[in-house]
Amino acid sequence: MMTMTKLKERSLLGLKDLSRGEIESILDRAAYWASQQEKVVPVLSTSFVANMFFENSTRTRFSFEMAEKRLGAQVLNFAAAASSVEKGESIYDTVKTLESMGIDAGVIRLKPSGVLEDLAGKISVPLINAGDGNNEHPTQALLDLFTMKKKFGTLQGLSVSIIGDISHSRVARSDLWALRKFGADVRFCAPQNMQAPELDAPYVTMEEALKADVVMMLRVQLERHEKGLFKSSEDYRAQYGLTEERAARLSKHTLIMHPAPVNRNVEIDDAVVECSQSAIFTQMSNGVPVRMAVMERALK
Amino acid sequence: MMTMTKLKERSLLGLKDLSRGEIESILDRAAYWASQQEKVVPVLSTSFVANMFFENSTRTRFSFEMAEKRLGAQVLNFAAAASSVEKGESIYDTVKTLESMGIDAGVIRLKPSGVLEDLAGKISVPLINAGDGNNEHPTQALLDLFTMKKKFGTLQGLSVSIIGDISHSRVARSDLWALRKFGADVRFCAPQNMQAPELDAPYVTMEEALKADVVMMLRVQLERHEKGLFKSSEDYRAQYGLTEERAARLSKHTLIMHPAPVNRNVEIDDAVVECSQSAIFTQMSNGVPVRMAVMERALK
Amino acid sequence: MMTMTKLKERSLLGLKDLSRGEIESILDRAAYWASQQEKVVPVLSTSFVANMFFENSTRTRFSFEMAEKRLGAQVLNFAAAASSVEKGESIYDTVKTLESMGIDAGVIRLKPSGVLEDLAGKISVPLINAGDGNNEHPTQALLDLFTMKKKFGTLQGLSVSIIGDISHSRVARSDLWALRKFGADVRFCAPQNMQAPELDAPYVTMEEALKADVVMMLRVQLERHEKGLFKSSEDYRAQYGLTEERAARLSKHTLIMHPAPVNRNVEIDDAVVECSQSAIFTQMSNGVPVRMAVMERALK
Repeated sequence: MMTMTKLKERSLLGLKDLSRGEIESILDRAAYWASQQEKVVPVLSTSFVANMFFENSTRTRFSFEMAEKRLGAQVLNFAAAASSVEKGESIYDTVKTLESMGIDAGVIRLKPSGVLEDLAGKISVPLINAGDGNNEHPTQALLDLFTMKKKFGTLQGLSVSIIGDISHSRVARSDLWALRKFGADVRFCAPQNMQAPELDAPYVTMEEALKADVVMMLRVQLERHEKGLFKSSEDYRAQYGLTEERAARLSKHTLIMHPAPVNRNVEIDDAVVECSQSAIFTQMSNGVPVRMAVMERALK
Repeated sequence: MMTMTKLKERSLLGLKDLSRGEIESILDRAAYWASQQEKVVPVLSTSFVANMFFENSTRTRFSFEMAEKRLGAQVLNFAAAASSVEKGESIYDTVKTLESMGIDAGVIRLKPSGVLEDLAGKISVPLINAGDGNNEHPTQALLDLFTMKKKFGTLQGLSVSIIGDISHSRVARSDLWALRKFGADVRFCAPQNMQAPELDAPYVTMEEALKADVVMMLRVQLERHEKGLFKSSEDYRAQYGLTEERAARLSKHTLIMHPAPVNRNVEIDDAVVECSQSAIFTQMSNGVPVRMAVMERALK
Repeated sequence: MMTMTKLKERSLLGLKDLSRGEIESILDRAAYWASQQEKVVPVLSTSFVANMFFENSTRTRFSFEMAEKRLGAQVLNFAAAASSVEKGESIYDTVKTLESMGIDAGVIRLKPSGVLEDLAGKISVPLINAGDGNNEHPTQALLDLFTMKKKFGTLQGLSVSIIGDISHSRVARSDLWALRKFGADVRFCAPQNMQAPELDAPYVTMEEALKADVVMMLRVQLERHEKGLFKSSEDYRAQYGLTEERAARLSKHTLIMHPAPVNRNVEIDDAVVECSQSAIFTQMSNGVPVRMAVMERALK
């Protein structure tokens, strides 16, 4: 059995408590995997990984599965209808069960915020957070950093605007905490009812937000917001969307990002998604080597 | 990146635009795989295949997965509840996402007709059609041709009756277009409301249809038809079903086929499904080597 | 093709008709796999196994998949929404289809009782029962026996109390029939409406039940019981639950077992699940080598 320290060094629950050095070492290793010509390098062929998606996400599960299989790992998938395992206790029983069966690491995505730390303390194999409620989504932020670093060479002094539903976004949180460690300047832009006052970051206007080096749009789910500041998705688009008109006014070096899936013509216009300044599908490509680095760190 | 010509030669969107020579070469290679004693021949061990089933089908997915794994490919599965990805745009985003993650080929099944060609034009890895709406189901037709050729030696001059819901059947379309290229004589038999006037093939009576070398029954879903020509499934069976009585009157050399799943005692009687003249489960066996040939063509 | 005798020797439909010698040989082989240090021993790398779960169970499917992959088998999974394949006939068509495609063995879990024997008679590859209705769950009982034997050295003369919803429990049945073959003394404890009069075993009071060497609690689903002997789950717990208070009164050598998933604080108290006398997660660990032995027997 692993010591708790060892276990903590192999798990990835969030970026808030990860040091700059640790993040850098993951990004460096991701760069190695991104440059690797061989599609399958079976360094983990005797390791069993469980992808435990208590909240469904085809995209994220697929990215992890690609990463795991490129490393030759044995992969077991499990996607739970939210209904049957909504309570923290059932999640614990399921994870503990899979641990008992002999998995070597678990990738976990779950709806509740703030139960993962406690869970990890009771499980003796490394856990990788693939999104926990509104809390963190560390591998998404790592691939965001990887993408920015590749484009700009450094994160130091980079201005990054994150625009949209900050309050429900685990991506905004993980990106904020990680980018700060590298001296990037993060600002949020959001309507009143989508702000997260507990996060220590300045809010700017849409006009101001568009002046940044990186403009990161967040998926908005209007049905989540009771207050109804917006009459329609057209209304949201007019006020906070990255429209073609706004995109045309961006500086030529500005990078457009989005964690996906996108709502075309709501928070971002159809024509902008794959324009030359957009890194949206590049982010998805970068997700695989980043997750290879994370899984290798967990298991090797 | 592959050239568009190369890509088109590796994809399989339908049989309508495939040459007789290309079909023959797939069938020949399928015959090789059918005769192969080794269960796993890992010629594709560094290739990643995504089985993207936007419309569920355990049977077809399983057949592709068997074929892919017998060739040693890395397989990732994805079955979407129709609801969340019903629009063509979302399908595009999902496929583009998986392409970005590094898949080498995609097997795709989807509900809408007529979007696949357009989709394939935007994706830079080979796509294999596992059924698109009412349009085509090319690997099903290939396994049908394979099964007929194995039984009769040639397709030239073979009379084939396809009986049932022609209008909703992608199998009928793919079979018609492919069989014609080999000089087979295809006739349809269907009640008025299940005919497809846009297809250039003669309709015959049930009595006439039963005189063919091949009698292919189609799955009927009576609830799809508003007009209500049939009071009940018993009524349909009486007029268009391959009943035991009708099966007994077939010529001894006539082959009974069905793309499955069957509605026992609706379009085909229970006792006929596995009678000595039925090739229904043989068709399923043949599906695996046929799909091995198709996947190998896409990836090798 | 295998002879029917050979096929029967490789299948595992239940323990009722399995000899003591056959059970012993599986348990011995499971002990070998439990002691094996290598995680993956690819003795079955050219065998295709279909896990056909017509009734969902993440836990049991995962355990089988771990076992199969530790032996290097090619694994295909399939979980059916009960709705589409509820009738015995459809189950037959699906299993026959997968057999036609070339699987070498099938693991099957299904809701209806009493159709498996008939099904197996029509299929020419070994079938492993992963739970069939209220009838049997042989691999669960095998892992129970394995766990008891490891703790007590022998099953001869062991007193085992099975407490809870006997009437709906396939685990109770498989355990009863298997334990009897080894001279264990099995007693049931259950309220009137959860008893199974057709089983030849004595019922004892809760006080009496707690005196056994093994106290096995069963998951209770109060909503299944119309008669309503219990006002609430608290009421059930008070009368038939293994509460902390009752657990404290157990003999020090008594083993607490449960086939899981547990209803914490209904049939067993939260604090008891992982207490030092509980073997609940050990049972899950033991499930993997037991299923390795079963799959190896089916395929080697």
